Amino acid sequence: MIKNIKTLQWLGDTDGCLRLIDQRKLPTECVCIDCQMTEDLFSAIKTLAVRGAPAIGVAAAYGICLAAKQIQNNTALSNAVELINKQADYLASSRPTAVNLFWATDRMKSCAVKFVAGNPKTTVKHLKNALLAEAQKIEAEDIEMCRQIGTNGEPLIPGSGAILTHCNAGALATAGMGTALAPLFEAHRIGKRLEVYVDETRPLLQGARLTAWELMQAGIDATLICDNMAGELMRQGKIGAVIVGADRIAANGDTANKIGTYSLSVLAKAHSVPFYIAAPSSTFDLKISAGSEIPIEQRNGDEVRGFGGMQAAPAEIAVYNPAFDITPAQNISAIITEKGIIKPVGRQTITAILTQT
Amino acid sequence: MIKNIKTLQWLGDTDGCLRLIDQRKLPTECVCIDCQMTEDLFSAIKTLAVRGAPAIGVAAAYGICLAAKQIQNNTALSNAVELINKQADYLASSRPTAVNLFWATDRMKSCAVKFVAGNPKTTVKHLKNALLAEAQKIEAEDIEMCRQIGTNGEPLIPGSGAILTHCNAGALATAGMGTALAPLFEAHRIGKRLEVYVDETRPLLQGARLTAWELMQAGIDATLICDNMAGELMRQGKIGAVIVGADRIAANGDTANKIGTYSLSVLAKAHSVPFYIAAPSSTFDLKISAGSEIPIEQRNGDEVRGFGGMQAAPAEIAVYNPAFDITPAQNISAIITEKGIIKPVGRQTITAILTQT
Repeated sequence: MIKNIKTLQWLGDTDGCLRLIDQRKLPTECVCIDCQMTEDLFSAIKTLAVRGAPAIGVAAAYGICLAAKQIQNNTALSNAVELINKQADYLASSRPTAVNLFWATDRMKSCAVKFVAGNPKTTVKHLKNALLAEAQKIEAEDIEMCRQIGTNGEPLIPGSGAILTHCNAGALATAGMGTALAPLFEAHRIGKRLEVYVDETRPLLQGARLTAWELMQAGIDATLICDNMAGELMRQGKIGAVIVGADRIAANGDTANKIGTYSLSVLAKAHSVPFYIAAPSSTFDLKISAGSEIPIEQRNGDEVRGFGGMQAAPAEIAVYNPAFDITPAQNISAIITEKGIIKPVGRQTITAILTQT
Repeated sequence: MIKNIKTLQWLGDTDGCLRLIDQRKLPTECVCIDCQMTEDLFSAIKTLAVRGAPAIGVAAAYGICLAAKQIQNNTALSNAVELINKQADYLASSRPTAVNLFWATDRMKSCAVKFVAGNPKTTVKHLKNALLAEAQKIEAEDIEMCRQIGTNGEPLIPGSGAILTHCNAGALATAGMGTALAPLFEAHRIGKRLEVYVDETRPLLQGARLTAWELMQAGIDATLICDNMAGELMRQGKIGAVIVGADRIAANGDTANKIGTYSLSVLAKAHSVPFYIAAPSSTFDLKISAGSEIPIEQRNGDEVRGFGGMQAAPAEIAVYNPAFDITPAQNISAIITEKGIIKPVGRQTITAILTQT
């Protein structure tokens, strides 16, 4: 987190709840919602109260603690594990693209299975403790991952020329200081001169609502633009680098990220501007060979027909509204991970960085 | 115009007024405003109640009739001409980029001067009649120009692959059936299968509000997208051609058009998609050698911070909000004019088409 931004926070012990900043209301209101049940969290993820691949992962891990909370302590262990698996699969179905969601629910499922296997005489109460400890570990790792991406990525921030970012891959997208924004926060911390252009990121305006807000909170020089202005800024030579997050990265480096990322990568290439992805290793889905296999979430057309509930287009107009697009590896100058920088981007360099200890 | 869309309409004789569709209220309301004085029209142009380079030109021509109306019939002719020149310059200052505005006010000024020179014994009343006749001629020429652009451009509409358009260069941007949309209306009229993707065109959403509405009125298969989705559609091979209007074209073919056009041209080039500009010859400013000399209007940052009074971004965030960008000639496959198709786009081909009779 930066300053007092606490994107998500588990309150209490195994009987607790997950408090989330309701990101749908930013920047005009900063209010929280408390998820008491997995259903509350499912809805929070689906409606984007919490969003950003790493934040969704951490939230889903705590979601398993909410599932465990609902289990009576006198339930048979095998039934408890079954219930947890069921709720994990339910949570995993809330959004289809971000792999961190499945990564986190799988890890929590595996934690339950392993804990019970390793402690056959244990109780449901102890299982709940083990799950909460695992979720807290995932959160702590996420915070550390962000810090490390900041440290690894900072040297890539050019001394001249502004940085362009798209959507929100900042503190609000993680439990820590962000992915794409982490190198910027780190550069700012060490006193590097920094100028950032923020794509508003239609249709849901995460750039205008969240990234602009975060950068202002941090005291970083930020300028908001419409998505269609990015190319013109590059033509003028004003952009020194583009840096964005990722929702899923295939084994060959093809990257799913917020719709509009692909266009930016083509524009960056045409203007010889470096194009960086910043993402934790949990964003890689090595089971998927190339980007074409990544499922892309299609969202409701009303998001495009209007603007924050205000209708802008004819109510009956057809709409195409994919939440993400795929940027091919050859358009990506480097991927910044907590384990190091992948450059050039390809199967071998990805494996080399991800498998190092 | 298409069907019953009457973008602008002079009501009455020399004492009349200019009725405009208030395009700021579309598509939720279709209401008109009556401009009685040049000040009313100045404000209508500045606040985009009427917009689109050709429509602004025709409106400004009628604006000179409003200026003439305010002159007493017993005024000395030389004073009347002076007043008209003054009001023409005032109207011309309403927006800086669209050359059709200056073209129309210059033509009306020149009409006044020539009429008085050729009829030294004439009266202010006759001068008013001459000016109204000239404005009506400009309107008729605009309608014919649109028709001709439709006829000339229709063969460029590919038989397969959708058309992508940006902003609004349709009936609402002209006195006739539009510029960029004219070839589509013509293709539709002759029964060509047609599928159109419409960029919503932030910040003022002329695509979502106006083009989507116009295409639906005409019964054309139209799908609305956010500006940042265009590249992804091209990557999927769905776009057969891009066609947009223009606000000013330099002697070398560099073209000022709605912000976002430049990005589209780069994306089209990268995907080998033909990129067409459709514009009347009055859009060419041969006094300007290259696009870098075209002044670009910067608009209020609140247009980007929100939409229609709804705030999306922090109120204090800095904003970059150019109304237009410049697409270099080398990114333009052809320019469709009422006089013919300019292809390839360059000084010589432009001169050749524009000077033919």
